[in-house]
Amino acid sequence: MKPYSGQGEQSAVQLQDMFRVSMPLPGQLEQHFQAALCHVLQNPGSLVRPRMVLQVAATYALEETAANHLAIALEYFHTASLIFDDLPCMDNATHRRGAPCTHVAFGETTAILTALALINRAYALTWKALAACPQQRQSLGMEYLERRLGVEGLLNGQSLDLHYSALPHTRATTERIAMGKTVSLIRLTLVLPALLAGAPLREVQLLERISTCWGLSYQMVDDLKDVLQSADETGKTAARDVLLDRPNVAAAIGVEGAVERLTRLMRVGDTTLRRLLARNPGLEFLGRLRQDLQGELSRVTANAAELSASAMA
Amino acid sequence: MKPYSGQGEQSAVQLQDMFRVSMPLPGQLEQHFQAALCHVLQNPGSLVRPRMVLQVAATYALEETAANHLAIALEYFHTASLIFDDLPCMDNATHRRGAPCTHVAFGETTAILTALALINRAYALTWKALAACPQQRQSLGMEYLERRLGVEGLLNGQSLDLHYSALPHTRATTERIAMGKTVSLIRLTLVLPALLAGAPLREVQLLERISTCWGLSYQMVDDLKDVLQSADETGKTAARDVLLDRPNVAAAIGVEGAVERLTRLMRVGDTTLRRLLARNPGLEFLGRLRQDLQGELSRVTANAAELSASAMA
Repeated sequence: MKPYSGQGEQSAVQLQDMFRVSMPLPGQLEQHFQAALCHVLQNPGSLVRPRMVLQVAATYALEETAANHLAIALEYFHTASLIFDDLPCMDNATHRRGAPCTHVAFGETTAILTALALINRAYALTWKALAACPQQRQSLGMEYLERRLGVEGLLNGQSLDLHYSALPHTRATTERIAMGKTVSLIRLTLVLPALLAGAPLREVQLLERISTCWGLSYQMVDDLKDVLQSADETGKTAARDVLLDRPNVAAAIGVEGAVERLTRLMRVGDTTLRRLLARNPGLEFLGRLRQDLQGELSRVTANAAELSASAMA
Repeated sequence: MKPYSGQGEQSAVQLQDMFRVSMPLPGQLEQHFQAALCHVLQNPGSLVRPRMVLQVAATYALEETAANHLAIALEYFHTASLIFDDLPCMDNATHRRGAPCTHVAFGETTAILTALALINRAYALTWKALAACPQQRQSLGMEYLERRLGVEGLLNGQSLDLHYSALPHTRATTERIAMGKTVSLIRLTLVLPALLAGAPLREVQLLERISTCWGLSYQMVDDLKDVLQSADETGKTAARDVLLDRPNVAAAIGVEGAVERLTRLMRVGDTTLRRLLARNPGLEFLGRLRQDLQGELSRVTANAAELSASAMA
């Protein structure tokens, strides 16, 4: 077995191919089910998660096939979660990845079966990735996956999200939701390949912390955008999230408080990143991720400052 | 690791306990999600599948913890499939296991999250069961599970079932659906523990064939009951399945043809059972399962004969 040597530099086309072919479809499928599966497999998202998995895998020399299996497995879990999120009983969305949502194009039933097919395949691919690793890491990896996806992770986050209107609208609540919904998948993306490759415990812990800081920050930037954009468009702070009573930290504690918290999270993230790179310079791709986040962040904080200046004027 | 020695004689109460405690719930769950999970865990079905898993495991001396994990994992998969089947977009059922369906009691969203939590836990338990077996059997077992649950198995069966009205109403179609929906889980129940325990290939093949014969027969008995019961109640053969255009072999090819096919399947099943017991008398519990099925069968064929006599009178 050779360690992964591609430095995570798969082209977008290669990743899209892997996304498409890692779910083999038998000849005799029910036709709506078949069409929905093709629809999903032919409309991948940005594939930022599998790219990150491969970069961590390259740094820690995780075996190549295991790295590929894990990268696609996590993207299938993510895609399945989006199909469920978009259902009428959840977010009732109509479009996703530039195409109609699966339930819009093929009906709810077929959308659910399609998401379950992705989940079934994702566990099988994860199992293949685990099987290539030493036994002790296998149990660690499986437990980590179960915790992040299950009742302590993604699923509880989604449940809190959907019952937000009945919960206290505080930073604690919005962060609990973001921990479940957003941070869980980022943790799987950055930490699981490191765990499976046998990365030093201290580095795994730092990757955990970075995932938390950046996951929460990412969600906060989204929340701020929602509030600031609507302020910009309508001249009032009646954000879409507020209208729909959706979790939004900027709506819960105000723009200023949210920007303050975001700044602090980014500062902790930066300290963590410096420590991590001092231990393992091979993780420098994380610095580029940090820069991307900074771009978004600067725009948002500039908008927030403008808003606050015009409010005072 | 000790081989499983309980002869599959767990009491109903012990099995119910295992069903309840094999899904640990953390303290800080969203309350609707928590309530729905408790509702499902406290209303187990007849637990006939885990009992069968434990009996096969006992015969082939599968390690005890692995047997227990696998037994509950398959019951969790089954329970999750029922929660999905009952949803408004699928069978739109209201009651299950003597209680309101999960979506009726807690809403669709929470029902979906609950089913996904069971699936997540079921894969983790299956993984634990696999991890206790020699590596080569692990891949065989995981591939077998993926095929039975995935796009070739349960999910495709459910998709065919839900699009039955657009398909030719033939025995071939109804049996394809039953192969996916009913036989898949029976195969997992009887074959997977044997595979993991390293049963001889010939016995695994015979278990496969018995699962197919009995799975199809079981579904046919159900179909016949539906048709005959409504004939009995209303004096007409307008069965519930016919009214709703649901797959039903007796409606598709007539009661007589269905009884004939059922008799033939049971005959093949009996020959297979004799061969299997000649090789491995330890599987005698299958003879008792056969007797249970015979009871149902006799009632149905007697009703069919009565109906045909009264039609001729």
